[in-house]
Amino acid sequence: MSDHIYKTIELVGSSTQGMEDAVQKAVSKAAETVRNIRWFQLLDTRGHIEGGRVAHWQVTLKVGFRLDDE
Amino acid sequence: MSDHIYKTIELVGSSTQGMEDAVQKAVSKAAETVRNIRWFQLLDTRGHIEGGRVAHWQVTLKVGFRLDDE
Amino acid sequence: MSDHIYKTIELVGSSTQGMEDAVQKAVSKAAETVRNIRWFQLLDTRGHIEGGRVAHWQVTLKVGFRLDDE
Amino acid sequence: MSDHIYKTIELVGSSTQGMEDAVQKAVSKAAETVRNIRWFQLLDTRGHIEGGRVAHWQVTLKVGFRLDDE
Amino acid sequence: MSDHIYKTIELVGSSTQGMEDAVQKAVSKAAETVRNIRWFQLLDTRGHIEGGRVAHWQVTLKVGFRLDDE
Amino acid sequence: MSDHIYKTIELVGSSTQGMEDAVQKAVSKAAETVRNIRWFQLLDTRGHIEGGRVAHWQVTLKVGFRLDDE
Amino acid sequence: MSDHIYKTIELVGSSTQGMEDAVQKAVSKAAETVRNIRWFQLLDTRGHIEGGRVAHWQVTLKVGFRLDDE
Amino acid sequence: MSDHIYKTIELVGSSTQGMEDAVQKAVSKAAETVRNIRWFQLLDTRGHIEGGRVAHWQVTLKVGFRLDDE
Amino acid sequence: MSDHIYKTIELVGSSTQGMEDAVQKAVSKAAETVRNIRWFQLLDTRGHIEGGRVAHWQVTLKVGFRLDDE
Amino acid sequence: MSDHIYKTIELVGSSTQGMEDAVQKAVSKAAETVRNIRWFQLLDTRGHIEGGRVAHWQVTLKVGFRLDDE
Amino acid sequence: MSDHIYKTIELVGSSTQGMEDAVQKAVSKAAETVRNIRWFQLLDTRGHIEGGRVAHWQVTLKVGFRLDDE
Amino acid sequence: MSDHIYKTIELVGSSTQGMEDAVQKAVSKAAETVRNIRWFQLLDTRGHIEGGRVAHWQVTLKVGFRLDDE
Repeated sequence: MSDHIYKTIELVGSSTQGMEDAVQKAVSKAAETVRNIRWFQLLDTRGHIEGGRVAHWQVTLKVGFRLDDE
Repeated sequence: MSDHIYKTIELVGSSTQGMEDAVQKAVSKAAETVRNIRWFQLLDTRGHIEGGRVAHWQVTLKVGFRLDDE
Repeated sequence: MSDHIYKTIELVGSSTQGMEDAVQKAVSKAAETVRNIRWFQLLDTRGHIEGGRVAHWQVTLKVGFRLDDE
Repeated sequence: MSDHIYKTIELVGSSTQGMEDAVQKAVSKAAETVRNIRWFQLLDTRGHIEGGRVAHWQVTLKVGFRLDDE
Repeated sequence: MSDHIYKTIELVGSSTQGMEDAVQKAVSKAAETVRNIRWFQLLDTRGHIEGGRVAHWQVTLKVGFRLDDE
Repeated sequence: MSDHIYKTIELVGSSTQGMEDAVQKAVSKAAETVRNIRWFQLLDTRGHIEGGRVAHWQVTLKVGFRLDDE
Repeated sequence: MSDHIYKTIELVGSSTQGMEDAVQKAVSKAAETVRNIRWFQLLDTRGHIEGGRVAHWQVTLKVGFRLDDE
Repeated sequence: MSDHIYKTIELVGSSTQGMEDAVQKAVSKAAETVRNIRWFQLLDTRGHIEGGRVAHWQVTLKVGFRLDDE
Repeated sequence: MSDHIYKTIELVGSSTQGMEDAVQKAVSKAAETVRNIRWFQLLDTRGHIEGGRVAHWQVTLKVGFRLDDE
Repeated sequence: MSDHIYKTIELVGSSTQGMEDAVQKAVSKAAETVRNIRWFQLLDTRGHIEGGRVAHWQVTLKVGFRLDDE
Repeated sequence: MSDHIYKTIELVGSSTQGMEDAVQKAVSKAAETVRNIRWFQLLDTRGHIEGGRVAHWQVTLKVGFRLDDE
Repeated sequence: MSDHIYKTIELVGSSTQGMEDAVQKAVSKAAETVRNIRWFQLLDTRGHIEGGRVAHWQVTLKVGFRLDDE
């Protein structure tokens, strides 16, 4: 990370599959418009419950990407 | 969530399968006695180790349910 | 836990498979040199992204082990 | 508060009017079924936005009530 | 929130009227350039004092909006 | 803690004797109506002062109990 | 704020009217004995409940004032 | 606490006896110069160790007192 | 800050010189594309170590800028 | 503390007597293998409950010791 | 620190030179009116930006001083 | 960081020169006995004051090193 500058943005993703799929979905969406995404940090995990079952897993994450060569 | 009032309770669930199964087990148990459960938030993830292996995944979560029509 | 003294250490593990595998990898590594490991607590989950995909899941965890009979 | 024992519960209330009305609505609802409510603490304030306007104010609060004479 | 991805941004708004007006002012400003704003969370409340009176209420808030159809 | 589900509740107890007596008083009160209490966590310690002396020690604690066989 | 030194003090104010009036009351009281008060930060909002109604709003705030020319 | 304004100050006290004696020592010292002290909150507990024994218990606490009639 | 709305973004900068140079580098980079930057807050300081020496200082900071006249 | 380097480790101790005895037990155990222990910080207090009574007090603490002359 | 009582106050200092100079400036100012200052803790680092450059470094710190012989 | 396991330890270093020198001193000391140190995180900055001047800068930091090939 020597001489680079990074920006982090906060995203909320969700999935019916689980936490890891929700993270991946948010990262994939961000990658459509932001280049050079390098890392994420999981900040919060929540979910919606219907009929006594977890219907959606919802994750809040920070995503970091390199600014230098934009 | 417009005009409703919700109450949240804190539960600890565990599973030999993993984090998501531990969340689901706690939600299912709560649903036996509480109606209108709508969401959860994962607060803490711990586990017990036996013989160098994770033997149980243990999650602490908040569960929210609607009070209005009780 | 009545009369025992425990020490906790902090580890960072990673896996291409997911969060639970990263936890298990760190626990297994610690168990090579530390006896009597009893529990872990997940402190942080991060990951590295390459080409819009999560390439590695990285977990920070506390691991507790009994000191008494060392 | 000398010799009493109190229990606190966590509630989420909402209002189209504002934060204070949302607090009062949650307190009133709790008072229907819990006696001896004595204090609240505001933990979080959120809201829903529709058409660029705050449509509902949503507060999370702890409410404390005396257990002794139940 | 099933299949959507949300982004949150952090804003600081202020008002001579009070906290709720400061929140609404920041939300309105954001709505000029960002579509699909859905929620906010109040993070911090401060203010400037002149002559022993609160001259401006200043709020820091997170605002969340849907990314999917941008 | 393998297959059990636990619920935690938050209590405030007080004592003229000290912190440990305040914890014990709150636990005893809870045990009158809740079975299977297993652990507590001390969250906050406060007190009331009269005439330059601590008149009451007041503790806020979480108390956890097993739900399974209720 | 270039070359000045500020001191912050913590106050608790209350009001039957609401949060903003409680803040203003604490600021006004401090201004009776402290010159050059410049800002406040709201740290905590609580309240007392009587008969199922919020009887007093109670705010904890930091207040900052310039030390230089005292 | 209806119409009063309180100020809180932060103190560090210590004792060779234990935590509660350290709290009382700090409160007593404050009461020599500040009237109307009403409550304290324990923020941190530390201690000095000499020869494998706790030599001093050291507590950091907030102390609140009424400002109105000063 | 009376009538203005501000947005804050989070950046990560680094430098071989030290913490202050890393902050300045991140601010300078942001100023290339964002007008009206007014303040920063240092959130985290980390660094990379090579051969027992700090090779890079890495700072995470929030940067705030005025939105009004964009 | 001028020119010395210290290391801190985290321990969990317990006692049937109370919090202070649990701290002392953990410090004594550490002193068997670590020289130059100088201070501790209490991080968490929990306990196990049996039959409505606190059976064990359990403390988590950081212990600091000087590294220089090892 | 054996038998002494300390009080801590919170200050905000600033400098065009950097963080350490801002800390020293606040400490020097406090020392003009308070005797027996013994330690500080850095709580927050912010700064003002003009023309894409850090114009002032601003630090918030706690300063502790001995109360006994005042 | 793909397949490696890291351990983090907490150190306290100090210097009469400033924060960065205190960090470097702690890192250098750790490197005498621990191989493969890779990063640090600054957790806390404090200092001792004598005669109204900062006499020592004291930093608490986490230091991470690779465990794999030990």
